[in-house]
Amino acid sequence: MSPNTITLPAAADFHLHLRQDEMMRMVTPMVSKGGVSLAYIMPNLQPPISNTEQALTYKKELEQLAPNVTFYMTLYLSPELTVDEIRKAAKAGVAGVKSYPRGVTTNSDGGIENYEIYYPIFKAMEEEKMVLNLHGEIPSDPESDICVMNAEERFLPQLEKLHKAFPNLKIVLEHATSKAAVDMVKSLGDTVGCTITVHHLKLIVDDWAGQAHHFCKPVAKYPHDRQALQEVVTSGHPRFFLGTDSAPHPSHTKETAHAHAGVFTTPLVFPYLANIFETLGCLDKLENFACHFGKKFYGLSQKPEFENATVTLEKTETDVVPNQFHISEDGTPSSYGAVVPFWAGKPLGWKITKHF
Amino acid sequence: MSPNTITLPAAADFHLHLRQDEMMRMVTPMVSKGGVSLAYIMPNLQPPISNTEQALTYKKELEQLAPNVTFYMTLYLSPELTVDEIRKAAKAGVAGVKSYPRGVTTNSDGGIENYEIYYPIFKAMEEEKMVLNLHGEIPSDPESDICVMNAEERFLPQLEKLHKAFPNLKIVLEHATSKAAVDMVKSLGDTVGCTITVHHLKLIVDDWAGQAHHFCKPVAKYPHDRQALQEVVTSGHPRFFLGTDSAPHPSHTKETAHAHAGVFTTPLVFPYLANIFETLGCLDKLENFACHFGKKFYGLSQKPEFENATVTLEKTETDVVPNQFHISEDGTPSSYGAVVPFWAGKPLGWKITKHF
Repeated sequence: MSPNTITLPAAADFHLHLRQDEMMRMVTPMVSKGGVSLAYIMPNLQPPISNTEQALTYKKELEQLAPNVTFYMTLYLSPELTVDEIRKAAKAGVAGVKSYPRGVTTNSDGGIENYEIYYPIFKAMEEEKMVLNLHGEIPSDPESDICVMNAEERFLPQLEKLHKAFPNLKIVLEHATSKAAVDMVKSLGDTVGCTITVHHLKLIVDDWAGQAHHFCKPVAKYPHDRQALQEVVTSGHPRFFLGTDSAPHPSHTKETAHAHAGVFTTPLVFPYLANIFETLGCLDKLENFACHFGKKFYGLSQKPEFENATVTLEKTETDVVPNQFHISEDGTPSSYGAVVPFWAGKPLGWKITKHF
Repeated sequence: MSPNTITLPAAADFHLHLRQDEMMRMVTPMVSKGGVSLAYIMPNLQPPISNTEQALTYKKELEQLAPNVTFYMTLYLSPELTVDEIRKAAKAGVAGVKSYPRGVTTNSDGGIENYEIYYPIFKAMEEEKMVLNLHGEIPSDPESDICVMNAEERFLPQLEKLHKAFPNLKIVLEHATSKAAVDMVKSLGDTVGCTITVHHLKLIVDDWAGQAHHFCKPVAKYPHDRQALQEVVTSGHPRFFLGTDSAPHPSHTKETAHAHAGVFTTPLVFPYLANIFETLGCLDKLENFACHFGKKFYGLSQKPEFENATVTLEKTETDVVPNQFHISEDGTPSSYGAVVPFWAGKPLGWKITKHF
C-alpha cells in the first residue's frame, strides 16, 4: 500500500523554460511551488542566450523572482560561439551549452545540423567540464523518410559519434521519447545522461492527435516507447533523471490552427510525478529520479541554505489541476492570456502541503 | 509541359460526408462546385443512417439541395441491422454498408470490432451486390502497442480475412493512409477496392502535429506511406480511386483543445487533384482516378442527363483557396461559424471555369 504522506528533498529540474517578460514573471515563482529548488535553464529566448553576460543578466532576473531556487544557466550553441566564450562562461558558472537542430523547436531557427564545426567548442567544454545538452532530433526530410515520429531515433548515431569523439564530455540527451533513445543512452558510457519529462511518461501519439495542449517537440510516440521510458525510471537507472521541458505558451497560441509546441508542468511537478510513479508502482524510485541522479550526473548542488530543503506531499481526493494560470504576476486575468497546464481539470491524487 | 486547360468528365467521390441541418445545406451545393457529379454518402449522422427509410429520406434532402448530383447511399453497420433490411435496402438502391470500428471516428461510438457476428449480413450483401465499406482501423490499445500510427496496418488482416470469407463481396478499404494498406489491397482480388483522399496524397504526420485543420482519422503517416499512395495513383491501378472523406467541422471545433477529426475538400476537389497530379507528373492519370475507376468498381453511373457532364479546369496564378466558408446557405456569416478548407489561403494553380 502506498503511503498517504511523503517527504522528499526538493527536486532538481534539469530542463526548464522560464521565458521572458510577463510570462517569466508568472512562471518563475511557480518553480518552487512545484517542489523544485534547482533549475537548469534553457537558453532559447528571443534573442537566444549566446554569451556569458546575457546568461548572467538572465540568471539575475530569475533569482530576483525566485530567491529560493538555485539556477544553472546554459548558452545557445551557434557558429558565433567561441572557445574564449566557453572559457569565460565556465569561469562564470554557466553549466552547459544547448544544441538545437535547425527549426525543430521554439526559437531554434538558428540551430545546428552538422556538429563537426563545433569540435573545438566541445573540446573546450570537455576541458572546462561544461555539459552538452542535445535536443536529439534530425530535421524532418520526407526524401529520407524523416518525420516527427522517427526524428529522434534518426538522431541517435550523432549522439554516439559525439560521445566517441569526446568520451570525457558530459552529454545529456534531452527529453527522450523513444525506446531507441533509452537503449542508446544505456549502451553508452557514464558521461552520457538523459532527461525524461513528466508528460512523456504519460503520453503517446494518440494524446496529441488533435489535442494541442499535449503537442510538444519531440512528440510523444508509440505505446512501446512510453513503456521504455516508464521501465527505465522504474528500474532506477542513475543516468536517467528529471528534466521537465516545461514550456508555457499562452492558450491562444495552442488552441489555434498552428499550435505552439510545449507542455506546461512547472506548477505541479512533484504531484504529477507522485501520481505517475505511484501508478507505475515505483514511488520508492521517485526520490532518486527527481532529486539525486541529475545533481550527481552534473556534479551540481543547491545554494547552501537550501541544501536540506524538503517537500511534503499528501494524498488528496478533491484537488484537481487548475484549468489555467493567468499570465500575470499576481495570478489575476491579464491581456497576455493564460496558460493551460498539463492534465488541466483532472485529479492528480497528490498535493504539496509543505514547501521549502 | 502541362496543358493550361483540361476538360474532364465530372468526378465521382466515393466517400463523402455531407452532415445534417445547416452544415448540410451549406456543403451539399458545393459538391458540384468542386467538380463532382456522383457522390457516395457516408451514414455517420446523429443518429446514424441505419435503415432504408432513413437513407431514402436523407437522399431526398440531398437531391433537393443538389439536383445536378447523383447520390448513392449507405447504411451504418451495427448489430441492429438485419438481413431483411439488407434485401430491402438493395431493392431501394442503397449501394453499400459502412463499418466503423468503435470510437475511431466522428459519431462511431456504435461501431463494431468483431466481424463474425455480421457474416449473415455480409452474405446477404454479397448476394444483393451491395458493397462493404471499411473504415480500416483497429481501436487504439496501448497494451498491444496499437495507436493511431499503426491502427490501419493492424486492421489489414481483418480485410484479408473478410475477402477470403466473401470473395464475391465487393469491399472497399476506405481512405488508405499507409504503404501496408496499398500493398494489401494490391495483393487481394478484384472485388477489393480502395479509396484515397485528396489530403492523404499531400500530408504526413508532421502536417497534423499541432495543425488542427490537417488532423483527420486515419491520421496521415510517414513520408514513405504518402509515397506509396502517390505511387499507386501514378501507376494508374484501377482498384484505387477517389473518395475524398471530406468532413467539414466548424472551425471553433478544430481550433480548440480537443479538435474534431476531418479535412474539408469538397468545394475544390478537382483543383486540388489537378495540383497534386500535376506535381506528381501524372495529370494523364487524373481522369481515371477521379472519374472512371470508382464507377467501374462499383458498377454505378450518374443520372442519364449527367452522363456526359464535363468540367473544365484552367491554370490560375492568382486564385487562392478561401480562408473559410461560412456555415449558411447563402455564404454570409452565421451563428454556426465557418469551415476552414484544406490548404486555406494557399494558391492551387488550377480553378474550375466550366461546370455541368
